Amino acid sequence: MISGTGLQIASINGKFNELAQKRLDNLTKPLGSLGRLEEFAKRLVAITENTMPVLDKKVIFTFAGDHGVADEGVSAFPREVTRQMVFNFLNGGAGINVLARHAGADVVVIDIGVDFDFDPSVSPLAKGGIKGGLFVSRKVISGTKNMRKGPAMTREEAERCIHAGIALAYEYSKKGYRIFGTGDMGIANTTPSSAIAAVLTGKTVSEVTGKGTGIGDEALKNKIKVIEESIVLNKPDAKDPLDVLSKIGGAEIGGIAGLIIGAASKRIPVVVDGFISTAGALVAYCIEPKTRDYMFAAHNSVEIGHKIMLEKIGLRPILDLDLRLGEGTGAALAMLLIEGGLKIYKEMATFGEAEVSEKGN
Amino acid sequence: MISGTGLQIASINGKFNELAQKRLDNLTKPLGSLGRLEEFAKRLVAITENTMPVLDKKVIFTFAGDHGVADEGVSAFPREVTRQMVFNFLNGGAGINVLARHAGADVVVIDIGVDFDFDPSVSPLAKGGIKGGLFVSRKVISGTKNMRKGPAMTREEAERCIHAGIALAYEYSKKGYRIFGTGDMGIANTTPSSAIAAVLTGKTVSEVTGKGTGIGDEALKNKIKVIEESIVLNKPDAKDPLDVLSKIGGAEIGGIAGLIIGAASKRIPVVVDGFISTAGALVAYCIEPKTRDYMFAAHNSVEIGHKIMLEKIGLRPILDLDLRLGEGTGAALAMLLIEGGLKIYKEMATFGEAEVSEKGN
Repeated sequence: MISGTGLQIASINGKFNELAQKRLDNLTKPLGSLGRLEEFAKRLVAITENTMPVLDKKVIFTFAGDHGVADEGVSAFPREVTRQMVFNFLNGGAGINVLARHAGADVVVIDIGVDFDFDPSVSPLAKGGIKGGLFVSRKVISGTKNMRKGPAMTREEAERCIHAGIALAYEYSKKGYRIFGTGDMGIANTTPSSAIAAVLTGKTVSEVTGKGTGIGDEALKNKIKVIEESIVLNKPDAKDPLDVLSKIGGAEIGGIAGLIIGAASKRIPVVVDGFISTAGALVAYCIEPKTRDYMFAAHNSVEIGHKIMLEKIGLRPILDLDLRLGEGTGAALAMLLIEGGLKIYKEMATFGEAEVSEKGN
Repeated sequence: MISGTGLQIASINGKFNELAQKRLDNLTKPLGSLGRLEEFAKRLVAITENTMPVLDKKVIFTFAGDHGVADEGVSAFPREVTRQMVFNFLNGGAGINVLARHAGADVVVIDIGVDFDFDPSVSPLAKGGIKGGLFVSRKVISGTKNMRKGPAMTREEAERCIHAGIALAYEYSKKGYRIFGTGDMGIANTTPSSAIAAVLTGKTVSEVTGKGTGIGDEALKNKIKVIEESIVLNKPDAKDPLDVLSKIGGAEIGGIAGLIIGAASKRIPVVVDGFISTAGALVAYCIEPKTRDYMFAAHNSVEIGHKIMLEKIGLRPILDLDLRLGEGTGAALAMLLIEGGLKIYKEMATFGEAEVSEKGN
C-alpha cells in the first residue's frame, strides 16, 4: 500500500503471461522470432489482464516545473524557456506534439510547478489545424527553491506532487485512456534528476551527471559541484524516496512518479520517457517496487545517468536513438513499437488458419 | 556505372545536408537533441535533393525464393513453407502484413525463385477486409541448385535477378512510391546469406553463421560445414560480387540487391531489413559503394553475421529488438521512425515562430 493514499499495486498474474505466450507460439513465424515485439504484447496482456488488449486511446503527460537551482548556472537555457515551451506545447509546435501526433496520442501539459501564472482557461491554440496539447493546472509550487541553499520543496509539497500525478492517472483511466506516456519540461531539471539518481542508486554524482541540453565542460564541473553540495547540505535519506524528492527533486519529477503509481494501481501500462522521467520512475519504484511491472522504458538517453537508473529499476530500453530532449518524445516513439507488438499478437494468422507447416524435427 | 545496365548512381550533394542542418538547428529544441531522428531527416533531404521531402507512398518488397541447399538439413522448416508463406502474405496474415499496415506501407510479394508455379492472376485475398500483399511474378528460377554440389545459379540467372530488382525499383518509382523497404522469404536462406557474408567480409563461416529460424547446436555445426564445403567447391571470387551471388547466393538476395541499386539510381531511400536483406545490400554495395548513401539499416538482427555485414557496408542499425523473422518486418518498423524524423523536421516550430528564447552563453 502506498502510504497516505490507500491504494494497492497488484503483482502481475503469471497465468496471463502463459495465455499470451501460447497464442504467440501458434502464429505463422518461427518461435520467438519477433523478439521484443512479442515481449511487449505479452506484457500488455499481463498488465491489463485481458487476452485481447486495446490501445485505442493513448496520452502523453508532459509535466512542467521550474527549478531554483537554475540560478547556479547549471543550464544552457534561460529559465523563461519553461513557460515559453508550455505555450509551444499548447500551440502544437514542439517535438512532443509532432511525435505524439505521429503515434496517435494526445498531449496533456500539466503546470505542476512553473514559475508563471498561466490563465487557467488557456487551451490548445491550434494554428492551421495543427493539434496542440491540452493545458491542465495542478500547480503545487511556483518553481522549487534553490537546493544548493536548502530543501527544494517541503515534504508536504512533494507529497502533493505525487498525489497530483496519481489523481491524473485516475482521471485519464476513467476517460478511457489505455496507455500513458510520461514527459517533462523544466529548465535545469537534469540537475535534480542527477541528484536523485546519485542518492537512490548509490553512485557518485560524476557517474550520473551529463551535459543536459548542451553545457560546456566547465559548466559541467560546476553542475557536479552544485549537486554534490546540495546533497551534503540537505542530507536526503536514501531509504526515504519522499525525503529525496522533496530535498533535491522537482515538482514535475514528483508528478511523474505519482502518475506511474496511479497507472500501476489501475493496471495501465506506462511508457517512461528519458532521463527526467526515469528519475520520477525511480522514485515510484523506491516507493513501491511492483510499479516496475507496469513500466516500459522508452529509450536509452544520451545522459550518462539514465542507463544506471534503468538498471537499478530493472528495465531494458526499447529505443536507442541518441535522444536527449525529454518532453515525452521517446515515449511517443516507443508507443508505436509497443502497439506494433500488440498488432502482431492480435492480427497475425496462426499456422492452422494459414495452412502453413510447422517446424520439423 | 553498373555494368550491363547503363545506370548511374550519383554521390550525395553536401549542399542539401547543410540546408537540412540549418533548418534543424533553428527548431525549438536544444541543438542535436533529437539525435538520430535529425540524422534521418537530413539524409532524406540529401537523398531526394528536396528540402521538403514527402513520404506519402511507402512499399515493402518481399522477395521469395527457394534453395536447393535446403536438402542438406540446414533449416528447421520444410521447404514447402516458402510457397505457403507466399499465400499467407497475399492473405494479409503474416508478420510483414501486420507491420506494413501499422506503418502505412503496401506489401509487394515477388516470386523471383520459388519452386512452385503460382497462378499468375493470384492477387490479394483479403479476408474480412484485411489488406494483403500484391503478387508480382518475376520468376528467374524455380529454386536454386544445391550449392554444396555445384553453383546455386548461373551467372546469367544471377544477373537476371538483379535486373528484376532494378526494374521493380523503376516501376514503383514511376508509380509514385517515395520510400522502399526490402524483405525476403525463402526456407534455408540464412545459409546462402552467411556464405555471402563470409566471402564478401573475409570472416570465417563460423563468425557469420547463426541458428536462423531456430535449429539446434548439432544442426548449426552441419550448417557451417555445408557452407564451408560450398565455398571450397565453388570458389566464388570475392572481388566479383556477381560471381559470389550466382555460386553461393539466392534469387531473392539478387532481387534485393537489384532493388537497392535501382532505388539509389532513382534517389529513393531504401530501408534494408535484416540478415538476408543485408546480404543483398552487401552485394549491391560491392557492385557500387555509392548505393550505401541511399540505404537505411532497419535493425540489428539476432543472426550473428548481420552486424559484421552492416559494419562492412558502414551502416548503423536503427532498431535493436531481437528480431529474426525477415519478410521486411524490421524495415516496416524502421520506416515509422524515419517518418517520425521527417515530421520533426517539417512540423516543429522554429524559435522565432514560437517566441522561445535560444540558448544563452
